Amino acid sequence: MIVTTQATITSEQSVLLQAHLERLGTNALPLEWNGAQNYVLGDTALDEHDIHALTALGADRVISLKQQYQVVSRAFQPANTIVNVSGVTFGGEQVPVIVGPCSVETEDQMAAVVAGARRAGCTMIRGGAYKPRTSPYAFQGHGELGLELLCDAAHPKGLPVVTEIMDIRELDAFMKHNVDAIQVGTRNMQNFSLLKELGATRIPIILKRGMSATLSEWLMAAEYIASGGNSQIILCERGIRTFETAYRNVLDVTGVIVAKKETHLPVIVDPSHAGGKAWMVAALAKAAIAVGADGLLVEMHPNPKESWCDADQALSIEEIEDLVPQLDAVAQAVGRSILA
Amino acid sequence: MIVTTQATITSEQSVLLQAHLERLGTNALPLEWNGAQNYVLGDTALDEHDIHALTALGADRVISLKQQYQVVSRAFQPANTIVNVSGVTFGGEQVPVIVGPCSVETEDQMAAVVAGARRAGCTMIRGGAYKPRTSPYAFQGHGELGLELLCDAAHPKGLPVVTEIMDIRELDAFMKHNVDAIQVGTRNMQNFSLLKELGATRIPIILKRGMSATLSEWLMAAEYIASGGNSQIILCERGIRTFETAYRNVLDVTGVIVAKKETHLPVIVDPSHAGGKAWMVAALAKAAIAVGADGLLVEMHPNPKESWCDADQALSIEEIEDLVPQLDAVAQAVGRSILA
Amino acid sequence: MIVTTQATITSEQSVLLQAHLERLGTNALPLEWNGAQNYVLGDTALDEHDIHALTALGADRVISLKQQYQVVSRAFQPANTIVNVSGVTFGGEQVPVIVGPCSVETEDQMAAVVAGARRAGCTMIRGGAYKPRTSPYAFQGHGELGLELLCDAAHPKGLPVVTEIMDIRELDAFMKHNVDAIQVGTRNMQNFSLLKELGATRIPIILKRGMSATLSEWLMAAEYIASGGNSQIILCERGIRTFETAYRNVLDVTGVIVAKKETHLPVIVDPSHAGGKAWMVAALAKAAIAVGADGLLVEMHPNPKESWCDADQALSIEEIEDLVPQLDAVAQAVGRSILA
Amino acid sequence: MIVTTQATITSEQSVLLQAHLERLGTNALPLEWNGAQNYVLGDTALDEHDIHALTALGADRVISLKQQYQVVSRAFQPANTIVNVSGVTFGGEQVPVIVGPCSVETEDQMAAVVAGARRAGCTMIRGGAYKPRTSPYAFQGHGELGLELLCDAAHPKGLPVVTEIMDIRELDAFMKHNVDAIQVGTRNMQNFSLLKELGATRIPIILKRGMSATLSEWLMAAEYIASGGNSQIILCERGIRTFETAYRNVLDVTGVIVAKKETHLPVIVDPSHAGGKAWMVAALAKAAIAVGADGLLVEMHPNPKESWCDADQALSIEEIEDLVPQLDAVAQAVGRSILA
Repeated sequence: MIVTTQATITSEQSVLLQAHLERLGTNALPLEWNGAQNYVLGDTALDEHDIHALTALGADRVISLKQQYQVVSRAFQPANTIVNVSGVTFGGEQVPVIVGPCSVETEDQMAAVVAGARRAGCTMIRGGAYKPRTSPYAFQGHGELGLELLCDAAHPKGLPVVTEIMDIRELDAFMKHNVDAIQVGTRNMQNFSLLKELGATRIPIILKRGMSATLSEWLMAAEYIASGGNSQIILCERGIRTFETAYRNVLDVTGVIVAKKETHLPVIVDPSHAGGKAWMVAALAKAAIAVGADGLLVEMHPNPKESWCDADQALSIEEIEDLVPQLDAVAQAVGRSILA
Repeated sequence: MIVTTQATITSEQSVLLQAHLERLGTNALPLEWNGAQNYVLGDTALDEHDIHALTALGADRVISLKQQYQVVSRAFQPANTIVNVSGVTFGGEQVPVIVGPCSVETEDQMAAVVAGARRAGCTMIRGGAYKPRTSPYAFQGHGELGLELLCDAAHPKGLPVVTEIMDIRELDAFMKHNVDAIQVGTRNMQNFSLLKELGATRIPIILKRGMSATLSEWLMAAEYIASGGNSQIILCERGIRTFETAYRNVLDVTGVIVAKKETHLPVIVDPSHAGGKAWMVAALAKAAIAVGADGLLVEMHPNPKESWCDADQALSIEEIEDLVPQLDAVAQAVGRSILA
Repeated sequence: MIVTTQATITSEQSVLLQAHLERLGTNALPLEWNGAQNYVLGDTALDEHDIHALTALGADRVISLKQQYQVVSRAFQPANTIVNVSGVTFGGEQVPVIVGPCSVETEDQMAAVVAGARRAGCTMIRGGAYKPRTSPYAFQGHGELGLELLCDAAHPKGLPVVTEIMDIRELDAFMKHNVDAIQVGTRNMQNFSLLKELGATRIPIILKRGMSATLSEWLMAAEYIASGGNSQIILCERGIRTFETAYRNVLDVTGVIVAKKETHLPVIVDPSHAGGKAWMVAALAKAAIAVGADGLLVEMHPNPKESWCDADQALSIEEIEDLVPQLDAVAQAVGRSILA
Repeated sequence: MIVTTQATITSEQSVLLQAHLERLGTNALPLEWNGAQNYVLGDTALDEHDIHALTALGADRVISLKQQYQVVSRAFQPANTIVNVSGVTFGGEQVPVIVGPCSVETEDQMAAVVAGARRAGCTMIRGGAYKPRTSPYAFQGHGELGLELLCDAAHPKGLPVVTEIMDIRELDAFMKHNVDAIQVGTRNMQNFSLLKELGATRIPIILKRGMSATLSEWLMAAEYIASGGNSQIILCERGIRTFETAYRNVLDVTGVIVAKKETHLPVIVDPSHAGGKAWMVAALAKAAIAVGADGLLVEMHPNPKESWCDADQALSIEEIEDLVPQLDAVAQAVGRSILA
């Protein structure tokens, strides 16, 4: 249950309102959302008398939600959240394509990536600095040096960046290098400590769905971030785990449309991890746009065969240049666009 | 392993060739495919000397296949199979949309369905006569009367029909009423007795994927039909079962593209069962076309709320009329078309 | 909803009762169960007045069930069903072990199997005559000859047999050779035509769970058989399909205990298919008995390496002789027994 | 690939050996394991000449492993690892039962838990202080106060404790209160930063399997800990996620036996989370012991209905007292024991 407040509420009223909520035994949690004050209540039963009293104290709406997720649900906020990542917007008519390598390797590599992205009409760069690798003996990423190479390549050309955080102790470095958006990876989707800390920032977060996370778990992970007051959340579907062995994951297009119905947050798709093979990316990316995705996150490498990780799934710069107009055609067919 | 024969082979040569294959202990199974004679061999090792001898006896190619599926694999036949269902073709540039109710109910219902389909630009009709219901106490379909109502409504208007078979003893009725294509449902995908009998016919078969069938199992089910010499097989993806509980199935777009890579058979999509809810059908249908599906199978009912089964997932005729041009736009964006 | 009748009901009363149920619009389906007459009703709302009238006409209990399954549910029949297969009972204190090869191969093989089973204390024989093989090119079983070899080996030694049916047209041969129990395999669990026909017999049926069948689907498949009046149904858990790739299936012990709670039917376990490897069978069989399984179905072959199918998972006769006393120890620990 | 060293190797030899491994380009990672020095190599090809040179420098065995997991694999260490948690051993003949509440609530609660555990013959206590809750609005645990209540109740009575860590910043508090074993929960199984830090300690770790983690991912998570030199790792199977909706998870007994074959680490089972319902725990616990589990982790609460979380799945103290002798009987049947 969420209690919103009237636009005209004063801070004195707000104190009285919260005190009254506590007297009602509601365990009210104050939550600022897009500049307005709200209170998230537990499973509390309020009667008409209670609601009348709350309204007199400055409450606006008392919203009862049947799902566990509250602030991220469309029942709370019917309008789309538009997430603005240093000028690139997710959740509107435009469908941004984020490209870049699995891991940041060298200055030359990143220069080529950024130049290629601009030629292709892609407006944001990805690249891994802290890498969650299945094996402790595999390359674990350049760490802070990776952040530096990534930002030094992209920022001067006016492109924002996103990169994955694995440990909250890395956050200072992310802020020092002005990382524009932080990715929470599949394996950390339910790392609640990390989510809470990111909720305390106001940096845009790209929250990947866990390999076998239900829609509800995914949205509750977003709720962890949102409950700290950070509304800048982008959900990212990246393929789910199934019984099938002939391909690594199944891109869950059904999940994309249900997510977009249940939440006001933008939902983007990572067709590279969803397929696991470069030859699948084009068709999956088209399906994602056709189904209504608000953006794409695509692995691109100047020389995929030389990629230090995930070599099988990266597209070359030329392939991306070839693909983007095709994606734009599909976007146009569903009333949206990729190229400005 | 498959041995194909030269176009000029005589029936005498063919007898000698088969005899030689048997002498080599290959368990050769003669298989006619699109008018040409082939032999499917077990896991036999043939050396160069053997192959030379086979060629002298009229063999053309000796194709060694690493997958279990043989005749349905692209390695055997690189070109797409085009399945022609009484004039409607699957596997080419055109993307037919099959519409109709979960179950054939009444003459009026079917008249409305056929008229609506024609207005909307849909070229084929579906409708259940023998219904696989989870409960033995639920309506089991009209049986042969359903076949009659279906064919009597569609055939005079020039539209072919598809309907599901549940038991090989129903085949005579299917043939009596000139059913144009026979559907093998999800629950019978590995009913091998049924598949073998259908392989002995030359009627087009729409083979739905089992709820949790792997790609390999699906293609092996097709191989059962193909091994009888029936090449008129259309695969139909209809959503897979996963861990998710917020929606009934997941439309496996990844499976569609991998299937189209592995086999030459057309692959269509049933977005109605894949989603289980009418509001999901439009977006899933667009994703299916964007990803490369060769056709759609969509539940449509003149009055969905009154539908005798699957009422939640049927679209109304008006919704279909509204949807088809949108689907055509996506088809055009990927170089295909729905409307003639 | 089920209406049971008083023990003293006459056939005239029964006619009147059914007529009244029809007047109430209940779609009542008469169903004889263990010699008593019942009526299964659709989702009908009956008020107290209705129930009073029914009682006056010979109705005993009016049982409202929240699950789809009716006759097979414990809510309908609280006591365990004991299935008697030619003297071997399932569902009581004793835990029978059924052994035998994947497929019936030769007279010598079957003689060895039967002799080994008796030495080991196993009381029933399995063996495939009609084989559901993934590939149409693989050995499909000896067919009726297999039934003959199986019964000729086992019956003279006093052991009942179970073997799989794939097509209802095979039923005559099953009856001619006095097959004691009929197995419905994983792939045919939802072959509703077949289930209905088997419901019309009074032969014990072993109903394997589908690879990804939910508990509800499995019990509804049993309901199809039961709705024909055949109460002699044994459920068989044989491993479910999951995301895991390091082993073929997961033996669902949780499913066994939930099944035994929800239904009065005996539930046995096939540890051979559940594991897919001979070395796993002993541990899985122990887990099955510890969790409460009412029997085991184990692949045994006189010479596993020479087995014509599933060679990896069969135990040798010696291994079975070694295993049975270990299983008996676990059975004793949970208050049951394997050896007489 | 792992290179072990001779027992007599000197530290000078060790330096030369590592230098030589680096010259060979092997990316050798030094890894101390149970007091002996080893080197883990990447996918390096070494020829006979190389191996001869390594042996001369103090290498003992050069072990080539086909799986990704190295140090935790049985191929590296054939003998069981026995993990000693302050006197309670896992991996030997004895099967310890760990009991305690979902979350540490009060001093009285914990006093009752410890007294009950001792009466029942359970030798170790669990209890959550830092709780990973699906909802940010749910009780998140007492934090450090919970550690204090847990240890203050158990340690004076001679019982070691295990409790979950969610964030590496909590480690100091764990050490301050002498937590005997640290649990890594399902949701953090692939929190690689956390695993690495725990690998640097020598505290026993109970590593729960992720909800949908493959065996390989689970063992690689253990490898992250082991690669830091911490050999005190206990794996814990707690039910996997499947397509089934009638019960929360499926206890993967197959996974237990495959894990015990692939790794030398002890494998315990949590039947409480595996079932999700108190009535299932007894049967699942018996299955776990029958299949070979090296311990059990069971939720117990003095008053389950009043439990602050997971109230459905906790057993009462009386139920545990009743259960343990039954578990001991099953343990005896498979050659092990629970009660000393």
